[in-house]
Amino acid sequence: MIIFSVYIFNPKEEEYEKEFHIPLVNEELVVCYENYEDYRKGPYMTTLPAAPEEPTTTQRQQQSTASQYPVQSNGSEPMIYFVTPTYPRREQIPEIIRLGQTLMHVARLHWIVADDTTSCSATLNSHIKKFGIPYTQLASPMPEVYRLRKNAPRGVANRRAALSWIRTNNKRSGVLYFGDDDNTFDLKLFSEIRTTKKVSMFPVGLIGDYAISTPIVRNGRVEGFFDSWPAKRKWPVDMAGFAVSLEYLARSPNATMPFKAGYEEDEFLKSIGLKLEDIEPKANNCTEILVWHTQTKGSKAPTVRISMDRQKLDKVNLGGLLKRLETMGVNHISDTEGTTAQAIVNGSVKPLSFWFS
Amino acid sequence: MIIFSVYIFNPKEEEYEKEFHIPLVNEELVVCYENYEDYRKGPYMTTLPAAPEEPTTTQRQQQSTASQYPVQSNGSEPMIYFVTPTYPRREQIPEIIRLGQTLMHVARLHWIVADDTTSCSATLNSHIKKFGIPYTQLASPMPEVYRLRKNAPRGVANRRAALSWIRTNNKRSGVLYFGDDDNTFDLKLFSEIRTTKKVSMFPVGLIGDYAISTPIVRNGRVEGFFDSWPAKRKWPVDMAGFAVSLEYLARSPNATMPFKAGYEEDEFLKSIGLKLEDIEPKANNCTEILVWHTQTKGSKAPTVRISMDRQKLDKVNLGGLLKRLETMGVNHISDTEGTTAQAIVNGSVKPLSFWFS
Repeated sequence: MIIFSVYIFNPKEEEYEKEFHIPLVNEELVVCYENYEDYRKGPYMTTLPAAPEEPTTTQRQQQSTASQYPVQSNGSEPMIYFVTPTYPRREQIPEIIRLGQTLMHVARLHWIVADDTTSCSATLNSHIKKFGIPYTQLASPMPEVYRLRKNAPRGVANRRAALSWIRTNNKRSGVLYFGDDDNTFDLKLFSEIRTTKKVSMFPVGLIGDYAISTPIVRNGRVEGFFDSWPAKRKWPVDMAGFAVSLEYLARSPNATMPFKAGYEEDEFLKSIGLKLEDIEPKANNCTEILVWHTQTKGSKAPTVRISMDRQKLDKVNLGGLLKRLETMGVNHISDTEGTTAQAIVNGSVKPLSFWFS
Repeated sequence: MIIFSVYIFNPKEEEYEKEFHIPLVNEELVVCYENYEDYRKGPYMTTLPAAPEEPTTTQRQQQSTASQYPVQSNGSEPMIYFVTPTYPRREQIPEIIRLGQTLMHVARLHWIVADDTTSCSATLNSHIKKFGIPYTQLASPMPEVYRLRKNAPRGVANRRAALSWIRTNNKRSGVLYFGDDDNTFDLKLFSEIRTTKKVSMFPVGLIGDYAISTPIVRNGRVEGFFDSWPAKRKWPVDMAGFAVSLEYLARSPNATMPFKAGYEEDEFLKSIGLKLEDIEPKANNCTEILVWHTQTKGSKAPTVRISMDRQKLDKVNLGGLLKRLETMGVNHISDTEGTTAQAIVNGSVKPLSFWFS
């Protein structure tokens, strides 16, 4: 059973715009799929752990009972709400696979995957649910008015959707963290942020012209920031460089993230009323790097020209394989344009039709 | 205790060159660090699993006895020798962290990390050993004669070093797989390749103008290949698209990989005497994608200009943090050039010396 629910929320736009000088518009949010049970099993040997046939959308028990893995959780640690904004592109599924395999190591984590789309991607879901991690998949598109901008505020509509989900579901304990699908997360990060009381901060590697963005810490306290793009920001930090306790977040029920590229972190942290003395430095007083802003090379999905009857391809593996690639957005098939599909047989190039003649 | 041993090997060059039309030169190989015990523990909660203080180089028992994790191994499955060529660059450590966290899920795996360097990187080692995975770290540089070429054969010297290590250590059972540090590996891949009898093959996503490279499979048998760059190759496959049993490899004691960019896979598979009928298609008869040629955006390590006495930075976290970044090759510090290091305090940009005045 899959439940679709739609929230439309409309904060007092004028007030917010006055304060933050940024326009806000209504947005859409669809809760696509959810699973609150921890189905993770031990490491893969000869078979994959069986994914549940249907996501248990209606079973909303927060405590995991079915968990066989991870084994070291006592079931009472603060939950980490790990928010990953994503969007359709040819690298989307590989990124989700790689990140999910990292998150599989982390006990007591609820993964909120928020897709920048108007409708729910069943392909994305089929991959997420295989990990056995408790998760919520949202669809929340960037409003058209921003999409046309040169400096479009990517990942904002989906992070706002996650904030909305947290409030709608009255999550008031645990920790919120924004983790992009192409970042690298050292597992130690999770044990560090899990105990965040208000807001914790830590260095992020491979950011900007210093190759690092970090708080400056003296005597165990954050006193300033080291970031090569100050941009008059009060909180010049990267999205992956802080975690927020949900108890603390709940004190600012109107806190949100603006559609303003480059200022998402700053304005969000302003909106929760952060004070310098509230910040807990992590990662050995900000001397270790536990999160990296790695970026995956993107490229346009190629078009492959197949001018023969595609059904014939089902006689070999190419039929099923190409359908799978298309559902993931990895390539397109056309009968009139693109790179001509050919086969190689014993070192010689042959037309695909060779197989069926 | 760390044991350094040096092999110099010199196959009959003339014979090989005649057969493969490629020059070969002597190469260096240093075994830097090794650990044959499986120290993996359960998932990370509040502390990292303790890494052994010293790599147990001298303890060469092949059977893991100390393993608490993964729990599902019965200790008798074929070992996977997972060979990762790597080279110094600013993304090297993050990539190793991300890949290592994937490999942590896989029982009975020996990770051969072969670095394209003349000397052993202690920084690289400090990260590898933390995973608790049995591993061997090699250093084997690309010979100078190739390094100057426009189309340098990257990753060859190190893969050859791994082959040499396998032979020197008389590994004749288990499975060999070449897995780059920036690829994405679905955990299911490991259970698929583990049972390879001779050579197994499977699709690799995000390769070339078809966005896929795969065998063509009919009636459960490989009959040809689908790859957008035929290049007159008999075996037009990607390095990540096949696995070889060590028993089978041992039948070709002179098999190797050429220093010939683009033809490494083809010539290696020729050198082991592969026949079409020996190939086992995996991944549901090559209709699933379990490995992806994701690529991480590379960029030059930036130079940060710090004109003050650097020792002063030890009074805050920046001293330790910047030293760590430098050892990883993530950035460089100069007192005369680069982007001037500045701090941000309460929204205002200040010189770093502000902290020490």
